[in-house]
Amino acid sequence: MSELRQDFTTGEWVIIAPERAKRPNWFSRPKQQEDTPEWDENCPFCPGNEAGAPPEVFRIEDDNSGWRTRVVPNRYPALTPEGSTARQVEEGFFKRIQGIGVHEVVIESRHHNVHLAELDVAAVRDVLITYRARYNQLKSIPFIRFISVFKNQGERAGTSLQHPHSQVVATPVAPPYIRRKLDIALRYYDDMNTCLYCDMFHHEAAVGRRVVAETEHFLVFHPYASHTPFESWIVPRNHETSFGLIPDDRLKELAGVLKTTLWCLQELLGDPDYNYIICNSPTEDEQNRYYDWHVMIIPRLTTPAGFEMGSGIYINTVPPEEAATLVRGASA
Amino acid sequence: MSELRQDFTTGEWVIIAPERAKRPNWFSRPKQQEDTPEWDENCPFCPGNEAGAPPEVFRIEDDNSGWRTRVVPNRYPALTPEGSTARQVEEGFFKRIQGIGVHEVVIESRHHNVHLAELDVAAVRDVLITYRARYNQLKSIPFIRFISVFKNQGERAGTSLQHPHSQVVATPVAPPYIRRKLDIALRYYDDMNTCLYCDMFHHEAAVGRRVVAETEHFLVFHPYASHTPFESWIVPRNHETSFGLIPDDRLKELAGVLKTTLWCLQELLGDPDYNYIICNSPTEDEQNRYYDWHVMIIPRLTTPAGFEMGSGIYINTVPPEEAATLVRGASA
Repeated sequence: MSELRQDFTTGEWVIIAPERAKRPNWFSRPKQQEDTPEWDENCPFCPGNEAGAPPEVFRIEDDNSGWRTRVVPNRYPALTPEGSTARQVEEGFFKRIQGIGVHEVVIESRHHNVHLAELDVAAVRDVLITYRARYNQLKSIPFIRFISVFKNQGERAGTSLQHPHSQVVATPVAPPYIRRKLDIALRYYDDMNTCLYCDMFHHEAAVGRRVVAETEHFLVFHPYASHTPFESWIVPRNHETSFGLIPDDRLKELAGVLKTTLWCLQELLGDPDYNYIICNSPTEDEQNRYYDWHVMIIPRLTTPAGFEMGSGIYINTVPPEEAATLVRGASA
Repeated sequence: MSELRQDFTTGEWVIIAPERAKRPNWFSRPKQQEDTPEWDENCPFCPGNEAGAPPEVFRIEDDNSGWRTRVVPNRYPALTPEGSTARQVEEGFFKRIQGIGVHEVVIESRHHNVHLAELDVAAVRDVLITYRARYNQLKSIPFIRFISVFKNQGERAGTSLQHPHSQVVATPVAPPYIRRKLDIALRYYDDMNTCLYCDMFHHEAAVGRRVVAETEHFLVFHPYASHTPFESWIVPRNHETSFGLIPDDRLKELAGVLKTTLWCLQELLGDPDYNYIICNSPTEDEQNRYYDWHVMIIPRLTTPAGFEMGSGIYINTVPPEEAATLVRGASA
């Protein structure tokens, strides 16, 4: 029998319906042929083609090769830094704002054909250092209210570009979706005098059934009300509101955890397309006592359909306890 | 320059970023080869194979051929009618409910290889009569709080079954996502003494830029803050809270409108995969003054990615004014 589980952070329900799943390995697909070259003369993100991308805004230098990571404005930006944040009334009825904000691309590696999970830990740390640098740079822009750092890997995850890259979008609004999560956490804080996220993370660590890895400062688990099969969260073990404030010595540890988590999913599921998102509070609210930043990894194995779109209720065919057991097996 | 538009019904922002679009016809794809047979011996929804599906719960009889539409329980149900709605505390921490509810499949036609848009209006009306009958039947079940009627067309929309079908899911919870929309509408009603949805529909009809069709009782338009290219709403012109209460004489008119709307999208975009959802209030709240049922059609032309998932902000590359102009052209 299936069950409805309530997402502790949003109040939304998820239907966990294992009867709907096909065989456990139906997610897995053959490993993709890696016939992509290490360098592509037409790729604006490959070394030597820098002139094909907009002017760089950040790089991590490499003494030998020039750069290890680079950040450039997105060539087809959703938002651009010019304009006004004034709310305008459209047609005497609706509300709009000019498309002011920042949209950048993080080039994660010089190599056209690698996956983040295949980089060494130092190289993944470079990517995280780059994220943090851009986050902290962009949050200093007065009109920015929220910054999303995310990666789309593969076509089912919304990208067709091969060269390993992530994106940063900084918006002039605090998204209502984010405010709602904060509101729920704030009410919990008022009720309980503790952080909802910390409490959930401690509970997951104590129960252990959905945990896939633990290090000194980080915990990796599949949430009780996972929206999708193999949804994975990387979370700090101690209270930390903002990814932007993470200290240097933790970034290497986080890099190892991220690499291992992605590597296990890749091994188990056969190079799945996925998104990950570094979930943060709005920039003006990054030292509160009721929210923890975290990394949410969503393998794109299933397609949200009419029911999900019309109700906000997701149907997940793999119980997170089962998914976590499989991942622990792959990691061993 | 792009812009942020606020969804009038949710308060969420959408980024309208036409600069990101490729050529206007990039959505269009060649019409699929129709080499699917009209009857498939292995399809449990085809006439003669009725025994391969779970026992029927509803049908519209046909004097000549036996049935025109049928409803059967989903063979892999997300929810089933047995169990308790009691909230259970799991692990001393989380909240869960047994997977109690109803999950049905509406078989829209005897013909294996037709699209809803290709049926004649009387046959589409049969489908709508079937929806309404199941909606009203299921809402009488005491533990049901919400009913979602939806169609997934094509793999990108979440189905791999060819035979034309829709689904009905009845849940034991009123989804928080739905409650939030109702809360916003109720606050608007208290403020303005009018229905937010009626006001928006009247505004769209008066402005006309995003309207694609109008009939005596229905309006079809692309919302100001469309989340995706060619998002289309079919709405009643007068206040009606629930699809379940729509009178007989309107169903034929609605059938014509739905058929034409889908047909135009099919012509213009080349048989796109799509979802449509009959958006309703919770079943216990179907005669209020602040919410209107409506049909939301979402062609699956783009893939929500990390940014959308992490912020709730959608990026839409086709302004609805432009999409509506194209659809009006196709319909002419």
